[in-house]
Amino acid sequence: MTTLIRVDMAKGTVSTEELPKEYAQMGGRGLTSAIVSHEVPPLCHPLGPSNKLVVAPGLLSGTTCANSGRLSVGAKSPLTGGIKESNVGGNAALKLGRLGIAGIVVEKQPPEGKWYYLLVNKDGARLLPADDLKGLKNYDLATRLHEKHGEKVGIISIGPAGEMKLSAASVAVTSTQGKPARHAGRGGMGAVMGSKGLKAIVVDDKEAPGVSYADHEAFKEAARVFRDALKAHAVTKPGGGLAVYGTNVLTNVINEAGAYPTRNFTEGRFEGAPKISGETMHDIIKERGGSTTHAGCSTCIIQCSNVYVDKDRNYVTSGFEYETIWANGANCGIDDLDAIAQIDRLCDEYGLDTIEMGCAIAVAMHAGVKAFGDAAGAIELLHEVGKGTPLGRILGNGAAVTGQAFGVSHVPVVKRQGLPAYDPRAIKGIGVTYATSPMGADHTSGYAVATNIMRVGGFVDPLKPEGQVDLSRNLQIATAAIDATGLCVFVAFAIMDIPSGMEAIPKMLNARFGWNFTLDDFTEYGKQILRLERKFNESAGFTSVDDRLPEFFSTEPLPPHNAVFDVPPAELDKVFDF
Amino acid sequence: MTTLIRVDMAKGTVSTEELPKEYAQMGGRGLTSAIVSHEVPPLCHPLGPSNKLVVAPGLLSGTTCANSGRLSVGAKSPLTGGIKESNVGGNAALKLGRLGIAGIVVEKQPPEGKWYYLLVNKDGARLLPADDLKGLKNYDLATRLHEKHGEKVGIISIGPAGEMKLSAASVAVTSTQGKPARHAGRGGMGAVMGSKGLKAIVVDDKEAPGVSYADHEAFKEAARVFRDALKAHAVTKPGGGLAVYGTNVLTNVINEAGAYPTRNFTEGRFEGAPKISGETMHDIIKERGGSTTHAGCSTCIIQCSNVYVDKDRNYVTSGFEYETIWANGANCGIDDLDAIAQIDRLCDEYGLDTIEMGCAIAVAMHAGVKAFGDAAGAIELLHEVGKGTPLGRILGNGAAVTGQAFGVSHVPVVKRQGLPAYDPRAIKGIGVTYATSPMGADHTSGYAVATNIMRVGGFVDPLKPEGQVDLSRNLQIATAAIDATGLCVFVAFAIMDIPSGMEAIPKMLNARFGWNFTLDDFTEYGKQILRLERKFNESAGFTSVDDRLPEFFSTEPLPPHNAVFDVPPAELDKVFDF
Repeated sequence: MTTLIRVDMAKGTVSTEELPKEYAQMGGRGLTSAIVSHEVPPLCHPLGPSNKLVVAPGLLSGTTCANSGRLSVGAKSPLTGGIKESNVGGNAALKLGRLGIAGIVVEKQPPEGKWYYLLVNKDGARLLPADDLKGLKNYDLATRLHEKHGEKVGIISIGPAGEMKLSAASVAVTSTQGKPARHAGRGGMGAVMGSKGLKAIVVDDKEAPGVSYADHEAFKEAARVFRDALKAHAVTKPGGGLAVYGTNVLTNVINEAGAYPTRNFTEGRFEGAPKISGETMHDIIKERGGSTTHAGCSTCIIQCSNVYVDKDRNYVTSGFEYETIWANGANCGIDDLDAIAQIDRLCDEYGLDTIEMGCAIAVAMHAGVKAFGDAAGAIELLHEVGKGTPLGRILGNGAAVTGQAFGVSHVPVVKRQGLPAYDPRAIKGIGVTYATSPMGADHTSGYAVATNIMRVGGFVDPLKPEGQVDLSRNLQIATAAIDATGLCVFVAFAIMDIPSGMEAIPKMLNARFGWNFTLDDFTEYGKQILRLERKFNESAGFTSVDDRLPEFFSTEPLPPHNAVFDVPPAELDKVFDF
Repeated sequence: MTTLIRVDMAKGTVSTEELPKEYAQMGGRGLTSAIVSHEVPPLCHPLGPSNKLVVAPGLLSGTTCANSGRLSVGAKSPLTGGIKESNVGGNAALKLGRLGIAGIVVEKQPPEGKWYYLLVNKDGARLLPADDLKGLKNYDLATRLHEKHGEKVGIISIGPAGEMKLSAASVAVTSTQGKPARHAGRGGMGAVMGSKGLKAIVVDDKEAPGVSYADHEAFKEAARVFRDALKAHAVTKPGGGLAVYGTNVLTNVINEAGAYPTRNFTEGRFEGAPKISGETMHDIIKERGGSTTHAGCSTCIIQCSNVYVDKDRNYVTSGFEYETIWANGANCGIDDLDAIAQIDRLCDEYGLDTIEMGCAIAVAMHAGVKAFGDAAGAIELLHEVGKGTPLGRILGNGAAVTGQAFGVSHVPVVKRQGLPAYDPRAIKGIGVTYATSPMGADHTSGYAVATNIMRVGGFVDPLKPEGQVDLSRNLQIATAAIDATGLCVFVAFAIMDIPSGMEAIPKMLNARFGWNFTLDDFTEYGKQILRLERKFNESAGFTSVDDRLPEFFSTEPLPPHNAVFDVPPAELDKVFDF
């Protein structure tokens, strides 16, 4: 039996039900988006009692399938005002899967000032008081909960930012090493969790039943084929780019492409890139004795994660990623990797989206609050957020609010969500995804960079408007489906080039659940999820106007290519013609 | 000839053209909305170079018609993201009319940090450097400009809030006494003026040609009939409620009706109302030797304005209004009239919308930033805005941003604009106007309170949902037309009950311009303006979802009537069925 846990924060009660039939084929993003679509009033206040926070492991989470440890966190977003699924690795999805839990739905609100945490284990789920945990940063919180519930539990939690209901607040998930360094960062899911008075979810899979299989042998065979594809592709294989340099391998690549957003998206190349690149980071970590490669997420074989240590070899952060390094590096004109690592740690501690924070700080720098390149200033700003000062509350609510507060018109957001690490003027495919994804500006929802720059799955010239809409459409559909499985989006690099890897996914689903999914069904499944999300957003008031990039991307040419974003609006409206 | 002045802030040039044919019948709100609709890209950033600030006197401004001294200020609003016309009295509209100027269109932006002011007189218009005026508050600014250009000029200006481009920044206009106490408050028009680097417009009508009339005798006759109507109606006549107690006559009325929003719209009656009512204010002013009644706007015969003095008989503020007293009084739980007068003065000095500020401060109080009732705290908060501290920048961007900053879900805004002084649960007609006006929550755009409470123009039960949509529709249409004439909206009280007064308006327009407007044409004119505005908003991404009140008005009953807002959404969508 697959169960759905419902938590009523007003009554302080927990109930367990079999996953309703209407949601039966849904997992991960499929389940979060289905529940939010069906059960959350589109016009409710995201921080009010009518919103629901949904946490769901993917369909394959809990199995032995490689890279199947992703967790989806969904709700109506306080940042975008639309539907949101924020995707995170770590060790919780596997444990939820092994406990037979399809999802946790957190509803309503407790009396003002009351805090709880949810303990989920083989005996079910119950709410426990968290008054003594209130105010704790994520690392201390994880330590306390580990002391209480054992080192092996998975922890899903919020830091002070979530408690303050800031729109850039993330939901942290512990890594396989127990560090709260993996975050469902985007869209303020931490604020929704905070609005529910829920400080953490502790997932203990001790003596869990584990998953059952309709056909275990067939599953093992499909999982082997899938694993072989990951091990064969240049990007994902052991010793490949992701394993050796982590995601930060991209810094030199994107900078070289002239698409590396610098100083609040005013330039496409950063003179300080060599000081913060994956190659440089690799050497620093090696020299200091950190770890250049490891699996931060359950079942991961790509191992893009790492452990960054300071000059005295003390742990600073792990899962130190390209997006984080860009957002708080180049985008803020900062070329000091140690400072950026400290920023990453602070974001993890306070529970903040590193992308949104980097965008917000860069906008503040644009306004002159701090100078571009002022690393100490950026760290100071993050502490303001953690302390909840007025300046911190501006920044902690993201780039759009920061822009409004300081009267800046050059604000890189779509649907009020800050843009990630690829300038849409120089990589136009990702620009289409930013503009049209129901999630707001989000690189993971249709990673056209793969085809525009890395020539994975073919090639579409990044600087030309032609072909980008088709590219983004196909990727958004495939990604929605993959996000429902619990597979890491990085598997896409391999399966876009290796058909057997792609085909293995429906085979695994069929062997797990006794379904008869074809690849076409899988594609249809992705479309179905996107349709649900689009419909929610429409009901929440979104129109084609919300599927546009900010004005300046079409009026201010980006050096060095001096390109503008010129995919016609009418073309953008064709992304969802399916 | 009626001229349109265009100011190119990038080039620092001014050009004058005959009012283009397509705008020929447009004045006031009709002209601002037509120009914004036709010339401003709906998706532009409101603070970027593509937005335009349009200042336009009404069609009758400059004539001898009573109460024809209103000025319209329009642009794409940084507060709402939609089209905005903000309406203000004072002495500038008359002077522009007498100079034959139909409108001033301020375009593009100067280099960062450059400030100018525009001098308009019988010789034309020119930009002058304003570097020495930067940072001045409105009263000091007016003094400086009066010293330079004479006591009689009209001044349209921004204070520090506009310079900071805060979304609650107003555009001040000098009263007939030369005080910058009249404000186009709503929608952040001051921020748009600030984004253009324009500190002030000085209007000198010395030796102005004055207006010409197609038929002067007919005009005088119609103007007499119109004046007679104002003098005959109980609300508008000399010695009537508005003249004796000012607009603050409403405090006891609305409080009695249980519709007086108290402590951030959580109650409908304020125990401190007697201390801040119009009657009390009248006695205080009388006792101290201020002025209980005067004409703050050119050609005004209603004389709802006043001069409020402190205990030492020193001038504090003038045009001390019901909305201001409510927003910063009852809505913040404050019952100290002297403190509220000081807040009004501070808003006028810094150039801030008193309604938006009261809403924002109340939301901050709801979050615990200050306690409800803390008058000194509210004053402190306003100084934060004036100084541009981070806390001030939160508040100065209005109630919606304040709610987001502090994680408050109880935020009374429509289209991100704070609600005025009538709770829509207990006066449902005004709720329909709040929800559906293209301007965002705005009482002046369809003042259903007149019919719901004062039984002007008939009676529709304020507590019942029936009939409110028709009422609001008719009022919104009539108001749009009146806002184009330069007539004060208060004339509506008289002309809704006295048909000859209503009929006099098209007669005056015909006699002035040689038109053949019927009353039906006048109604059609109002519809035309609303259609333009709705179309702009649609192009900017607004849908029916934006024509809704916040969730809590339908879920939280308002004491003492324990009413919720229950006009069905489908009914709201019928407001613009015309």
